Amino acid sequence: MKRVSIKDVAKEAGVSASTVSYVLNNTPTETISQETKKRVLEAVSKLGYVPNLNARSLSSRRSNLIGVLIPQTEPGKELMFSNPFYGELLSSIEYTARQHGYHLLISGTKEDQDYLSIAQNRGVDGVIIVGTYPGENLNALKTLGVPIVLVDSYVKDDDFHTIGIEDKEGARIATRYLIARGHRHIAFISGSIRENGVNIKRYQGYCDAMQEAGLPVDEEAVYSGTVDYEYGITAADQYLSRGKKQSAAFVTADVITMGLIKGLQQKHVRVPEELSIVSFDDVYLAQMAYPTLTTIHQDIGEKGKQAVHLILDAARSKEHHHTECILPLRLVERDSVCDWRDDS
Amino acid sequence: MKRVSIKDVAKEAGVSASTVSYVLNNTPTETISQETKKRVLEAVSKLGYVPNLNARSLSSRRSNLIGVLIPQTEPGKELMFSNPFYGELLSSIEYTARQHGYHLLISGTKEDQDYLSIAQNRGVDGVIIVGTYPGENLNALKTLGVPIVLVDSYVKDDDFHTIGIEDKEGARIATRYLIARGHRHIAFISGSIRENGVNIKRYQGYCDAMQEAGLPVDEEAVYSGTVDYEYGITAADQYLSRGKKQSAAFVTADVITMGLIKGLQQKHVRVPEELSIVSFDDVYLAQMAYPTLTTIHQDIGEKGKQAVHLILDAARSKEHHHTECILPLRLVERDSVCDWRDDS
Repeated sequence: MKRVSIKDVAKEAGVSASTVSYVLNNTPTETISQETKKRVLEAVSKLGYVPNLNARSLSSRRSNLIGVLIPQTEPGKELMFSNPFYGELLSSIEYTARQHGYHLLISGTKEDQDYLSIAQNRGVDGVIIVGTYPGENLNALKTLGVPIVLVDSYVKDDDFHTIGIEDKEGARIATRYLIARGHRHIAFISGSIRENGVNIKRYQGYCDAMQEAGLPVDEEAVYSGTVDYEYGITAADQYLSRGKKQSAAFVTADVITMGLIKGLQQKHVRVPEELSIVSFDDVYLAQMAYPTLTTIHQDIGEKGKQAVHLILDAARSKEHHHTECILPLRLVERDSVCDWRDDS
Repeated sequence: MKRVSIKDVAKEAGVSASTVSYVLNNTPTETISQETKKRVLEAVSKLGYVPNLNARSLSSRRSNLIGVLIPQTEPGKELMFSNPFYGELLSSIEYTARQHGYHLLISGTKEDQDYLSIAQNRGVDGVIIVGTYPGENLNALKTLGVPIVLVDSYVKDDDFHTIGIEDKEGARIATRYLIARGHRHIAFISGSIRENGVNIKRYQGYCDAMQEAGLPVDEEAVYSGTVDYEYGITAADQYLSRGKKQSAAFVTADVITMGLIKGLQQKHVRVPEELSIVSFDDVYLAQMAYPTLTTIHQDIGEKGKQAVHLILDAARSKEHHHTECILPLRLVERDSVCDWRDDS
């Protein structure tokens, strides 16, 4: 049950531990005979020795670890995997990292715990942070000296790489589509609308589309809560208690839409006949839903892949280039929208 | 952008780097004055120095890392987060680990890559492996010398800890429930039925319940594929092409059930009126489904929590105690089952 150590290899090969280390690391300053090399490599193979990368990272400063920080909804809560967006993103990040010989160090972050100490403690080669807002202690991160990629963040800072989507444009596309289908009273349903977050951009896109069509943005048509299934159910109740005044809704996350539809079904409100919905994300849930979701498709797999590539590229080049990567969006038509004829 | 090093702290405090190290590690063999300690700690605080745990792990042999190996369905594929079971399990593992100051090293595993080298390379304090089968190179794992927890595996080996559920009993409960609701022709739909896997246990439980009720197990009523949404859709097609001979189905994973219901809806087969379904897992999807799923509830959060605790406990005690942990199951009644009166 004991781990095979470098000393065991040295003993087996009849050489010193540092000779084993020189052979395994191809240390250029040391001249070692072919015979000795062969003996060491045979001993490594025979004993099944695997070099400890933690030890190696001390000299090469390469850990082959990428830190991934995924926020919880609240401090001390579990990771947000109840939103499948995060699972799909993580899946893609892991797959891309693995293909390049990297592994992931996953952390949820607490508000009372710096991103910094987690990443620095571990000697990671880069950090991917999902969904940060300005003011969240990001300055401290700069002292890490490793590439940092912010996913879905509107923090503008040359020291960070960013990867995101055109949130405002996606919301415009969604809202315009509902208007084109005859809807005039359109709700906006989202997670919390915070400065420089994705939801405020989507809200702006919704407002833009309404205004360009000459439609008023009614405060009562705006619903804002948390990005989860439960809030969708709550939003359904609010929609009914506010008098069911809209014939359509743009919802900024599929997981909220799932809850919204469930809440409406419980009150026997039909989707799309009584409320048409354009959603956002196109997670795999969107196809499982009943009705299936007409939604703004974002390429979550590509988001994860690009995030890893940004780190690998930045780690390779010595100079610091700030990279901003914006992925395209498109509307996918399914069954959650129908035409509206205003015969009321 | 440069990382603050122990040398920077030493310079700031006017002491040697080894003195800083002694102070931070509370090295008992070294006597250091209170004044010097204070100076070092002030310098640490002023510069924002965070000790590198990789370096520390070399001496203490503690990495505070837990390796989590989540299989893909196929070599070279992405992680299985399209099955929300894995997301919920990982979420719970991460949360429990974080509460104890541990972080997770996530890896997908390839068939051409040993679990071993991943875990050994990283110097993890323990490994959690989800869903292994016997013969999958598990012997090599023993050389790691760290606690290993197999989740949902029927590998019997005193060198591993295991955590699981009573798969056979869960299947019995599900099938008995359908029989009690009047069903006589009951399908069994699952992922691949492999020796010592969870599905063969569930299949046995299904057979037990059928036999104790004097009902034959029809080979044509057994559907086996992969644990994913797509297979559920395929199973719906197979069910129809085989002549729709069952009035009920026990499905061994909620994610398959979601696909099954979708496939049936596309062919205008009503659930539960034409096919009643008892599912398995009770992932959050089960409540989102339409109809909501009557399903065997397993406590996925507890599974993750116990897996981490098994590792922490085993790492603490010097002796090796093999621990087997079996979590309870229960049926949750929702809307996917109705009574069957055999008036045909």
